[in-house]
Amino acid sequence: MGSLEAGHDLKNGSTPMLNPLDPEEFRRQGHLIIDFLADYYKNIEKYPVRSQVEPGYLSSRLPDSAPLDPEPIETVMQDVENHIIPGITHWQSPNYFAYFPATACIAGFLGEMVCTGFNVVGFNWVSSPAATELESIVMDWFGKMLQLPTSFLFSGGGGGVLQGTSCEAILPNPFRGAEGSPNRWNQPRKFSAIPTTKDNAFGLIPDSLESAILSDLAVGLIPLFLCATVGTTSSTAVDPVGSLSNVARRYGVWVHIDAAQAGSACICPEFRHFIDGIEGADSFSLNAHKWFFTNLDCCCLWVKDPNALIKALSTNPEFLRNKATESNQVVDYKDWQIGLSRRFRAMKLWLVLRSYGVVNLQNLIRSHVDMAKHFEGLVGMDKRFEVVVPRNFAMVCFRVSPSAVGDRFESCDEKIVNEFNRNLLASVNGTGRVYMTHGVLEGVYMIRFAVGTTLTGYRHVGMAWDVVQDCAHAMLAKS
Amino acid sequence: MGSLEAGHDLKNGSTPMLNPLDPEEFRRQGHLIIDFLADYYKNIEKYPVRSQVEPGYLSSRLPDSAPLDPEPIETVMQDVENHIIPGITHWQSPNYFAYFPATACIAGFLGEMVCTGFNVVGFNWVSSPAATELESIVMDWFGKMLQLPTSFLFSGGGGGVLQGTSCEAILPNPFRGAEGSPNRWNQPRKFSAIPTTKDNAFGLIPDSLESAILSDLAVGLIPLFLCATVGTTSSTAVDPVGSLSNVARRYGVWVHIDAAQAGSACICPEFRHFIDGIEGADSFSLNAHKWFFTNLDCCCLWVKDPNALIKALSTNPEFLRNKATESNQVVDYKDWQIGLSRRFRAMKLWLVLRSYGVVNLQNLIRSHVDMAKHFEGLVGMDKRFEVVVPRNFAMVCFRVSPSAVGDRFESCDEKIVNEFNRNLLASVNGTGRVYMTHGVLEGVYMIRFAVGTTLTGYRHVGMAWDVVQDCAHAMLAKS
Repeated sequence: MGSLEAGHDLKNGSTPMLNPLDPEEFRRQGHLIIDFLADYYKNIEKYPVRSQVEPGYLSSRLPDSAPLDPEPIETVMQDVENHIIPGITHWQSPNYFAYFPATACIAGFLGEMVCTGFNVVGFNWVSSPAATELESIVMDWFGKMLQLPTSFLFSGGGGGVLQGTSCEAILPNPFRGAEGSPNRWNQPRKFSAIPTTKDNAFGLIPDSLESAILSDLAVGLIPLFLCATVGTTSSTAVDPVGSLSNVARRYGVWVHIDAAQAGSACICPEFRHFIDGIEGADSFSLNAHKWFFTNLDCCCLWVKDPNALIKALSTNPEFLRNKATESNQVVDYKDWQIGLSRRFRAMKLWLVLRSYGVVNLQNLIRSHVDMAKHFEGLVGMDKRFEVVVPRNFAMVCFRVSPSAVGDRFESCDEKIVNEFNRNLLASVNGTGRVYMTHGVLEGVYMIRFAVGTTLTGYRHVGMAWDVVQDCAHAMLAKS
Repeated sequence: MGSLEAGHDLKNGSTPMLNPLDPEEFRRQGHLIIDFLADYYKNIEKYPVRSQVEPGYLSSRLPDSAPLDPEPIETVMQDVENHIIPGITHWQSPNYFAYFPATACIAGFLGEMVCTGFNVVGFNWVSSPAATELESIVMDWFGKMLQLPTSFLFSGGGGGVLQGTSCEAILPNPFRGAEGSPNRWNQPRKFSAIPTTKDNAFGLIPDSLESAILSDLAVGLIPLFLCATVGTTSSTAVDPVGSLSNVARRYGVWVHIDAAQAGSACICPEFRHFIDGIEGADSFSLNAHKWFFTNLDCCCLWVKDPNALIKALSTNPEFLRNKATESNQVVDYKDWQIGLSRRFRAMKLWLVLRSYGVVNLQNLIRSHVDMAKHFEGLVGMDKRFEVVVPRNFAMVCFRVSPSAVGDRFESCDEKIVNEFNRNLLASVNGTGRVYMTHGVLEGVYMIRFAVGTTLTGYRHVGMAWDVVQDCAHAMLAKS
């Protein structure tokens, strides 16, 4: 509820209107929410990590239409406590090891507050010059931290842009690929997934790419776009950036490197080699909201040739025309993305970079990798378990091994082993003490242990392993 | 900077690590930002509404790479004050009348804080059931407030989803249109803008639509998708929803109604007629971040047939498989949008609806329309000015009339009149006291006066008109 006192000027002395942006009421309610969230983080380990509610739980707890009259914020927040928190899967819990964690931090949160408080819509330069200029500056900062070739930086003729998600960031590129050659629009757009195998640690082999390109050409299809991945979701596999780019570019194919999660690690010199050869690519993206402590959402995309994006995505309606744009001295980020409206996301990234500094950010990422190594060590010490694929970053893919399942079930048939591990994961998550998810590669069901929340420490990793061992022990010992 | 004390558990007693999500440090810094923003709103009228900086102003004020070491939040916020605020165009200023305002409010801001604090990634139900279920519930609430046919509500077999921007919300639909008929993928995708004229208040005429469809069919193109608009950006023109839908559906064309800004007004019974006939459309969207007090971003999309979206957009990688999804009892919103990751935007809309209630929200919208009417009245009383197109909602399109320009320049040639009004707008915005933007329809340059920020009152409208009159007076009186 806003203040009823400090309302609008009134024309005819009628009843004072509510002012939903009254500064003192903003202050009062804002402090209340800060305390609510600080307490939430303090108590976060008390909640089951994965929500244990049943489908449809909420509709019986809430009315079926909006209230006619205002309700005080205290009432609403009591409902958040009673009805929403039980339905939350706690992504910020230190015991969260599922999917890829979404790292958050104080600076990322504050940056979002400032962004949301100013609430500017920075579609072009003039609509809020600071939003555009800060974005260009921090994207160059971040690019330098990643040692991207200068051709990806504004200072080298390229440039970076913040978007919501990798899907948004990647989508324009195939469209771009079609630009310039009008005939290309006339072919049905097709996407192919090129198989990878365990023998190559699930990295895409350049020869497989070339064969796929040649097969397409043979049937009159024109390959436009390659999306290679550094750190796949299933197993953090890494495609060889340099050699794939060499192949693709011979055929005029736009090369995008999607390093949504693992890209952040490349700020550490010891992990930078995973994107060696990036100078051969056309675009590169990572999600700062995955492993760079920047609250959701914040996807970073760098391109060598911004004009390619602009040609494909630019809109120039009369109502947006302005002198700054026509001077060609400014960036209008609306032309670098699908949507028109855009948030001041650079504020978040800027606060993260300044509040922690490069050295701490490197060390935080290293600490996650070290914790994953520690977990890998624990798995390795227990003969009933095995690590399924090599660990590259901060994720361990493991399972109870066929031999251990065989000892118990007198069969190590792959289906039975998979079923055992599937049940193990359900049992682990059912405790509410940790949350992990799974992957399947070449028919092998693996439990993914992804380290990455900001609050996770060695204590939590050790506890998670205890839970896994306890659950496995109970299942293997079952009569 | 985070706390150095309350850090991680340590393996070997090495130096304590920074904890970037320490609850007490979160509390301290959070309160600091709340006070910063409360003071910002209190002082917002002191700043020039449109930023007066020159292109490139920021790069000389900031270092060209990220700091190696942490900086205190107080230092960073001092830089926000000194270097960012001068580059901000103040969208929340009560003197902001440009583009379409982005209304913000306390509840929208708090909702964003809670969303960002939980920082859950609700791509499917299991990843945070409350995020999905609250979204479905508030979209039904909002749909009922708009008196959408039940076929657009979950309770009637349809449903709503929150996205970032209208562009995102609209994009999937043409793709959907292509689904089901594989041949349709083989035609080049083309978009046509069908002309409208002043005689029909710039609304699209059903006959024009039918002619366009027939021309396409005559050359072998298959019309897939119509985007009709309720409240265009140039002049808030309204396309006749019902009669256009009737035409489009005869040809199997998917009809989307884009009511990005004006849709919110339809919660008032007296404005609901602008979407009469909506039962003939397939999908409907509005931006709650435009005129529904919900901080950026929050686009609401309702569809009658969610399966059409799901068929076009669904992805089902192994790592996202889960029992809830396979039970078919839950909504997985990732299948309703382009991106995978998604924020808990429903929290914002829920807080807005509960904190103000339907009656206050209706009255706030009415107050904006009334203020626009008041401005229209002021324009009407000054013979040197004219209202260019009929006012439908809270925007007035006006200019200095050809006769007034003619009296001064001895020519009322349309080019000279346009140039005069363009200069007038530059002069008005150059004062820093207000910000308005422009549109051009049928060659006529208009100044758009769009009422809609939360803090705007009659005093600000009156002051804006004074600024316009003063600037025009100076220009008309020029020797």
